[in-house]
Amino acid sequence: MSLKKYVGIDFGGTSIKGGIVDENGTLIVKNSVLTEVDKGQVQMIDNIVTLIEKLLEESSLKMDDIASVGMGIPGVVDSKLGQVVLACNLRWEKVNVATELEKIIGKKVFVSNDANVAALGEVKFGAGGGRENAVMLTLGTGVGSGIIANGKLLEGHKGAGAELGHAVMVMNGEECTCGRRGCIEAYVSASALIRDTKRAMNANPDSKLWQGVNSIGDVDAKLSFDYCEVDETAKTLVDNYIKYLGDALASVGNIFRPEVIILGGGVSYQENRLTDPLQEYIDNTVFAGKLLDQIIVTTAKLKNDAGIYGAAALCMLG
Amino acid sequence: MSLKKYVGIDFGGTSIKGGIVDENGTLIVKNSVLTEVDKGQVQMIDNIVTLIEKLLEESSLKMDDIASVGMGIPGVVDSKLGQVVLACNLRWEKVNVATELEKIIGKKVFVSNDANVAALGEVKFGAGGGRENAVMLTLGTGVGSGIIANGKLLEGHKGAGAELGHAVMVMNGEECTCGRRGCIEAYVSASALIRDTKRAMNANPDSKLWQGVNSIGDVDAKLSFDYCEVDETAKTLVDNYIKYLGDALASVGNIFRPEVIILGGGVSYQENRLTDPLQEYIDNTVFAGKLLDQIIVTTAKLKNDAGIYGAAALCMLG
Repeated sequence: MSLKKYVGIDFGGTSIKGGIVDENGTLIVKNSVLTEVDKGQVQMIDNIVTLIEKLLEESSLKMDDIASVGMGIPGVVDSKLGQVVLACNLRWEKVNVATELEKIIGKKVFVSNDANVAALGEVKFGAGGGRENAVMLTLGTGVGSGIIANGKLLEGHKGAGAELGHAVMVMNGEECTCGRRGCIEAYVSASALIRDTKRAMNANPDSKLWQGVNSIGDVDAKLSFDYCEVDETAKTLVDNYIKYLGDALASVGNIFRPEVIILGGGVSYQENRLTDPLQEYIDNTVFAGKLLDQIIVTTAKLKNDAGIYGAAALCMLG
Repeated sequence: MSLKKYVGIDFGGTSIKGGIVDENGTLIVKNSVLTEVDKGQVQMIDNIVTLIEKLLEESSLKMDDIASVGMGIPGVVDSKLGQVVLACNLRWEKVNVATELEKIIGKKVFVSNDANVAALGEVKFGAGGGRENAVMLTLGTGVGSGIIANGKLLEGHKGAGAELGHAVMVMNGEECTCGRRGCIEAYVSASALIRDTKRAMNANPDSKLWQGVNSIGDVDAKLSFDYCEVDETAKTLVDNYIKYLGDALASVGNIFRPEVIILGGGVSYQENRLTDPLQEYIDNTVFAGKLLDQIIVTTAKLKNDAGIYGAAALCMLG
């Protein structure tokens, strides 16, 4: 008997990426189309259908060969209803996208939030090694998160949960985009590291960090890591960043007690320079850390395909 | 056909409480025996059996009338294995208590951590109204927590999760019993409020709070609430406590997006004096708070019986 096959769709504000994945986690084919937010909801759903048709054609498969379709969407998604509650980038509010798509393609459609879905893909087919309890944090412009508990996505009521980046770790601390102060995102996002790097450079005009940029506007999240072995200001920046991230991860460890914490996003490209000190910090800090199983800290493996794999995994969870 | 009946056991360090609960959540009978930690593991398990026999006798039921037995245990409990991984108060380590008990009584036995189980009882049969997504925080000597996500307990790997009290909310803040600094427990437990009340009284010798005690050693978590309408020091204490608790609950809201947050423990007896300002704080603070369903803040209803109801509910989840 042939393996079950699923279509996984990673629905973004600019492009819609998709692939066909079999139940063993093999990505058979992938492709993408433009989202065309400006053309409205009906056209966007048409574009999804076009993408699915392309994928079928390129893999010489028919719609009948597909068990179901999964999709990650950037916004608040009620997976039970199959409804996008709110997706600012798509300008969608209360869109029953699963039902709409099911009507057209005649297949069951599963939906969830894109960060949740990417985390699920990474846990099931990437760095998570299929573990039942795992948390992924994406360290980018913001801090996205996905939580897998007992092998299932933790989504919260109507899909509005799993916003770990908006838990406060420094009360009355730095301003966060969400309106609160001191959120995890305001300390460990790439944006936060860039903010802190700029501040430190302005306060230390002799720092070697200045050699890495033409102007302060060029500072990125990589700069402090690039100079941390040759410059004291850079070293302090990296040490502080790891202390904040370590403390956030230790809290995540105490709340969820995952088997693995996976870091994604730009900052995660630092690999062991990031994970080695974090692993040590967590081993020493988490509740009963030495008595119970270690919480492994690692980095994402599937990169840009995590959303496709995760959307297919969403189908497998059913 | 008669309703299914379950034995619920709330296993404490001093006494073992138990009851028989039917599938509608009616507590048919309850009783308790001493735990007798000093007499060792075999005697403690015997005492559980004695309690079950008492419950059957008092309700004129037979073991055959019982569908299964649930039990909440103070420690790290691996519910899949039915094993107590670590329970300091019982001096247990890696005890396969479910199997041991099953051998004696011939019924399936479900186990989990006592705080998780009490939360489950409160969510299923008390203040939670049976909702699928709920968090309970017990504000006592420490801060216990129980998390229900998608109708199931979130326990973490080998039952070591759901320690919300040990997430950091004030980095480098007050010392916590867990060895970290700034944990939620170190700010919103009854012990933290007592600590802060004593500090404020020592700093304000003219405060009316002194009228409520014979000596500083008598300060309890109720004192500041009792005087907050007539004394500025007490008012500041209560306002600060609510600000910390509100910020912790807003983070809990963002992480789990529960439909309801239930407060238990001594401080929760303040009822609306506590929940009214907290509700306002959360409505204004939580992510997309005005756009999505309100997260209701309320207090526990089942008090001392929550553990019994929850242990029975554990059986119903299977």
